[in-house]
Amino acid sequence: MTTLFDAPEDIPDELESPARPEIITSLGGGHGLFQTLRAAKFCSPTKINAVVTVADDGGSSGRIRRELGQIPPGDLRMALAALTADAEAGELWENLLQHRFGGHGALAGHALGNLMIVALTDILGTSQHALDQIAELAGAQGRIIPVCSEPLDLEAEVSGLDEDARVMRQVRGQVAVAATPGQVRRVRIIPDNPEPNAAAIEAILDADLVTLGPGSWFSSVIPHILVPEVVEALATTKATKTVVLNLTAEPGETAGFSAERHIHVLRQHARDLKIDQIIVDTKTLSSPTERDHVERAARTIGAEVSFHDVQAEDGRGRFTSVHDPAKLSTALLESFAVARRR
Amino acid sequence: MTTLFDAPEDIPDELESPARPEIITSLGGGHGLFQTLRAAKFCSPTKINAVVTVADDGGSSGRIRRELGQIPPGDLRMALAALTADAEAGELWENLLQHRFGGHGALAGHALGNLMIVALTDILGTSQHALDQIAELAGAQGRIIPVCSEPLDLEAEVSGLDEDARVMRQVRGQVAVAATPGQVRRVRIIPDNPEPNAAAIEAILDADLVTLGPGSWFSSVIPHILVPEVVEALATTKATKTVVLNLTAEPGETAGFSAERHIHVLRQHARDLKIDQIIVDTKTLSSPTERDHVERAARTIGAEVSFHDVQAEDGRGRFTSVHDPAKLSTALLESFAVARRR
Repeated sequence: MTTLFDAPEDIPDELESPARPEIITSLGGGHGLFQTLRAAKFCSPTKINAVVTVADDGGSSGRIRRELGQIPPGDLRMALAALTADAEAGELWENLLQHRFGGHGALAGHALGNLMIVALTDILGTSQHALDQIAELAGAQGRIIPVCSEPLDLEAEVSGLDEDARVMRQVRGQVAVAATPGQVRRVRIIPDNPEPNAAAIEAILDADLVTLGPGSWFSSVIPHILVPEVVEALATTKATKTVVLNLTAEPGETAGFSAERHIHVLRQHARDLKIDQIIVDTKTLSSPTERDHVERAARTIGAEVSFHDVQAEDGRGRFTSVHDPAKLSTALLESFAVARRR
Repeated sequence: MTTLFDAPEDIPDELESPARPEIITSLGGGHGLFQTLRAAKFCSPTKINAVVTVADDGGSSGRIRRELGQIPPGDLRMALAALTADAEAGELWENLLQHRFGGHGALAGHALGNLMIVALTDILGTSQHALDQIAELAGAQGRIIPVCSEPLDLEAEVSGLDEDARVMRQVRGQVAVAATPGQVRRVRIIPDNPEPNAAAIEAILDADLVTLGPGSWFSSVIPHILVPEVVEALATTKATKTVVLNLTAEPGETAGFSAERHIHVLRQHARDLKIDQIIVDTKTLSSPTERDHVERAARTIGAEVSFHDVQAEDGRGRFTSVHDPAKLSTALLESFAVARRR
């Protein structure tokens, strides 16, 4: 097996073969996908595919989407940055892609990588061509695949915005959904049956391991399973399907959500979704009762829960709210091996 | 001698050695510099330096300069694009650098290459570092050197704007100067004694051939000889100094200018400037009287006139108003050889 990446040293030897995914396809968006792609690099596969949400309407992405009518590039750019090479040239490309203009003018806040993706899309005709080209220029170790070629809109049913808690209101747009002070009950995408990017479907079908999450649950994770062909591909693929749960509930869209509620809303949004493994952080879910709840929820979507220490620590040894890529890679490989033995 | 570039086939054999410049440094800006750099590539030197004006205040450059306080990147970007490799990757980089955003929003009209230069300047700290880095990324066959590290302002004394033709008015800014309906009498730069970029001075001192022009005479060519250290370096260098005259007077800043007037205004702006060769297009200056005038003007700055067919033709064989890079390279090499025999 040819591997593109060096594995971290602490991956147990018995995992080296044969139960190691050669093709990893990660579904998500934003910072959650960034960390997962870094973890995927540590898994030393021959190929990584990032299938990326296109429902963002905030910041630089939102401005570009409204101004130029292209799919929001921000999550694509971040996935690209995650897959740049580890060498010096890779660091330069990461800095270049992620650079944001300062000042107080028309450019302020735009990320250069977003503008490069948009320009290359204009030049080459499709965002997929543009992303393949920029990945080549930047020496990215994987493919960046927007889930759809057209931008999607997100609309949520939110309760708790009125005095009468039963009143449901429609909240439109990723930024508005992510920041709502109410409780998100359900989201939908507009259009509700979008044409998927054929490369995204292929990437799911070809994979040995498909990951979903972590990330903003309603705005980066669930939108993927609202695309009917994506759910079909997940049902068809021989890949091990692993959900990586968030470490904490997010203020706004998942405020107060328990671990099992994260799983329940997956099922609520895609009735037939079947998952093999759910990776849960050991420390954030330490009580036997909580673990029992999450295991019961997992069984409703066919999944086994795999507890791992996956939380990143800051410079002073305190846990942060993001996944540590090296730890997550170990968790992905171990749970993959377990799933393959079942 | 190692050469980076293939010479066009029509360069006479006797020029192959020894009278061939190994280091060519071209001073200018805009489309004129672009064509000269393309010509320089055809000359097969070991090194090309583009010393680029930083007085532009229009378009994407002007917006960036006002918004972010950096030197205007447009002329730098165009020089970069001229020096991209001839292979497919070079074409992609040229397209990427030159791409302009469409639409009607805040990005409309910005060139991506301008934004890349600005972002890299933020990341690496100086525009020279940024340009060296982007040249490496783009595989550019030469170095792009802003003449100063700070933006310059252009101010012209213009007559003919009032009913009384003797009244002189100050016109401020490159765009305003280039488009004035009056007659430009003299320009100055602000500040009037700017600190030059040390790399620009080195590039002049190290060169075998220094070219000045063609280009917008008052806004891309003359600003170079208003930087005192540049004029000193031109006096010191052992390089052959060649001025390439414009093919036509430009509407606006040089409307109605004869060939010799172009030369006279050089001397008017830099009393001690000495030039070796002036390349004039054969067809645009065909009468003996005109040639005599331009030769007399040339002698006032120590130069010999070298007549060549240098005009580009369009697809239908009609002459255009730009220099043909292959023809210009032949002219540069022939006049260089003549100067070296003197």
